[in-house]
Amino acid sequence: MKIGILGAGQLGRMLALAGYPLDLEFTFLDPATDACAAPLGTHLHADYEDESALARFCEQIDVATYEFENVPAFTAGFVGGLKPLMPHPRALIAAQDRCSEKQLFTSLGIPVAGNVSVGSLEQLRAATRDIGTPGIVKTRRFGYDGKGQKIIRGEADVAAAWESLGSRPLIYEAFVDYQREVSMIGVRAADGTTAFYPLSENVHRDGILRVSTPRAHDALQALAEDYTLRVLEHLDYVGVMAFEFFVVGDELYANEIAPRVHNSGHWTMDGAVCSQFENHLRAIAGLPLGETRLRAPCAMINFIGEVPPTEQLLAIPELHLHLYGKTPKPLRKVGHANIMAPDHRTLQDRVAAVERLCLS
Amino acid sequence: MKIGILGAGQLGRMLALAGYPLDLEFTFLDPATDACAAPLGTHLHADYEDESALARFCEQIDVATYEFENVPAFTAGFVGGLKPLMPHPRALIAAQDRCSEKQLFTSLGIPVAGNVSVGSLEQLRAATRDIGTPGIVKTRRFGYDGKGQKIIRGEADVAAAWESLGSRPLIYEAFVDYQREVSMIGVRAADGTTAFYPLSENVHRDGILRVSTPRAHDALQALAEDYTLRVLEHLDYVGVMAFEFFVVGDELYANEIAPRVHNSGHWTMDGAVCSQFENHLRAIAGLPLGETRLRAPCAMINFIGEVPPTEQLLAIPELHLHLYGKTPKPLRKVGHANIMAPDHRTLQDRVAAVERLCLS
Repeated sequence: MKIGILGAGQLGRMLALAGYPLDLEFTFLDPATDACAAPLGTHLHADYEDESALARFCEQIDVATYEFENVPAFTAGFVGGLKPLMPHPRALIAAQDRCSEKQLFTSLGIPVAGNVSVGSLEQLRAATRDIGTPGIVKTRRFGYDGKGQKIIRGEADVAAAWESLGSRPLIYEAFVDYQREVSMIGVRAADGTTAFYPLSENVHRDGILRVSTPRAHDALQALAEDYTLRVLEHLDYVGVMAFEFFVVGDELYANEIAPRVHNSGHWTMDGAVCSQFENHLRAIAGLPLGETRLRAPCAMINFIGEVPPTEQLLAIPELHLHLYGKTPKPLRKVGHANIMAPDHRTLQDRVAAVERLCLS
Repeated sequence: MKIGILGAGQLGRMLALAGYPLDLEFTFLDPATDACAAPLGTHLHADYEDESALARFCEQIDVATYEFENVPAFTAGFVGGLKPLMPHPRALIAAQDRCSEKQLFTSLGIPVAGNVSVGSLEQLRAATRDIGTPGIVKTRRFGYDGKGQKIIRGEADVAAAWESLGSRPLIYEAFVDYQREVSMIGVRAADGTTAFYPLSENVHRDGILRVSTPRAHDALQALAEDYTLRVLEHLDYVGVMAFEFFVVGDELYANEIAPRVHNSGHWTMDGAVCSQFENHLRAIAGLPLGETRLRAPCAMINFIGEVPPTEQLLAIPELHLHLYGKTPKPLRKVGHANIMAPDHRTLQDRVAAVERLCLS
């Protein structure tokens, strides 16, 4: 079967690496000249709204999917008109606008922080008064890795925040004083079968994910699965979806969904029986879903900007290296390591060893 | 780092899949138009003795290796003259001729079945008298998957065996009445560090490997490691080597070595901490070797001629599919499955389920 992927970054690359053993072939569409998935399939180097390129893309494939949520609506419509596009474009629409996303959560009974759409400085002032401070003002669209966000601690920050973000539609959200950030990676097959990975606990720095640690038997596993299932079923979703939550006591507050394989699920490549990448492909190819069980204590560490010396990383026991073949650049995700261990204490020691290499 | 591989079959394909996460790039040289590793790198489609193609191959790479033992001596010499070629060509010379191979084993104190080189019908008659029957007459070179072999049960078989094989140099070997066939996958780094996987027990049918089952704590593990180490050190070997043995009581009789990753080590892709493919690449790239420990009960089943229905295979728990993207053809290896299980009883049941799908 021939799979077409919109986007040819590291997620497309890891999808292809998971797909060849299933005898799947890959065609990527990506305007980037240095797209790191390109060596693993046919790379159509064109703009996402280039009709002739999209037509060629569709001619070469049986099924289409995407590795990023900001696929233009035109592109989704064009491809979806010619070939099965999974997940369905309605998942993109739901995820691309923080306001419609929050409304979806609310309509499904999933708790969210207080929030309001903001179109003017006056509205932003009103929002901070109504919802209170501290809060976060975010662009409704195209935000990622902490980009397009400002924290508002009080009245004094409002004008500056508007100054830097006000050119675009915004949302103001009450600041959630959370104890943990967790994410649920769920997968749904076309026949409605679903599977959920253990909740992973995520540590961000400068808005970028640094460490994900799956938690076997987290007390909030069942609740996170319930909320994720509501979204998957509402969207009649096929494929892998990530759902990020804030943990406050024994409550989960929805942060956002990603209608794709997700960085907080990279640990599944080595720590789960079947990885999120293989399960996404199984789902869109109409194959049975694989087991999501955690095999052993595991953690994922991102390499941001550059990769520590490979020789030193690989000398750490049970460390699995996943490099993306990307040129090092500040704040760019260039690879990650999955670290396994027989017990949590050993895992902590090994994670600390990797973090020392990242800092040195 | 750019890796050049002579041969672009399934072994080259699985090497590349293991290598991308280490940020390695691949160039293959293979005369086959349908080489199944081709989509995973640059494929130079040329004869192995095509000097200009070999020169282009060497220009594109940092390090060269091979995925089959019948690399022509000219090719090994040409490539080895321009780039580091690992394992060293002396490993090819040792493995390509069954007589020199047996002499090497004997010189290193590794037991072998009685054997003698045969160049005429008279010599074959004499050999069967001296060594006795039953025995096996084999071509000295280019035999694989049981090809180029005849069993001689008695005098009556000699003429026919000579008739079918006598056009080439032969070896006559005493038949070893073994209880088990096992193989040791060993890996040696350039600095002399070595690592050995658990012995795997192999079941052949029609001379073709069907099932490999790694045995944790096999009573013969230490002896097999000792014999393998002798060969690795004698050849100053860098990379993965497979060593096949016959088990008679508590003795090991050397059958043959393969100077490459080997089918009986495919279980390591899912059953070991670090696969034979990654370890071969780590060795030739000068990286630290990975752990060879068995993670859980595991077995490998080959798909010969065709692949059973994928949907049914993937419905078996903890089954990892590895398809090669090859056109189905009688007696052709088109893929394999690695099956894991929490215990040996469950493993047997799952293996039986796969075997039923292979037969149906």
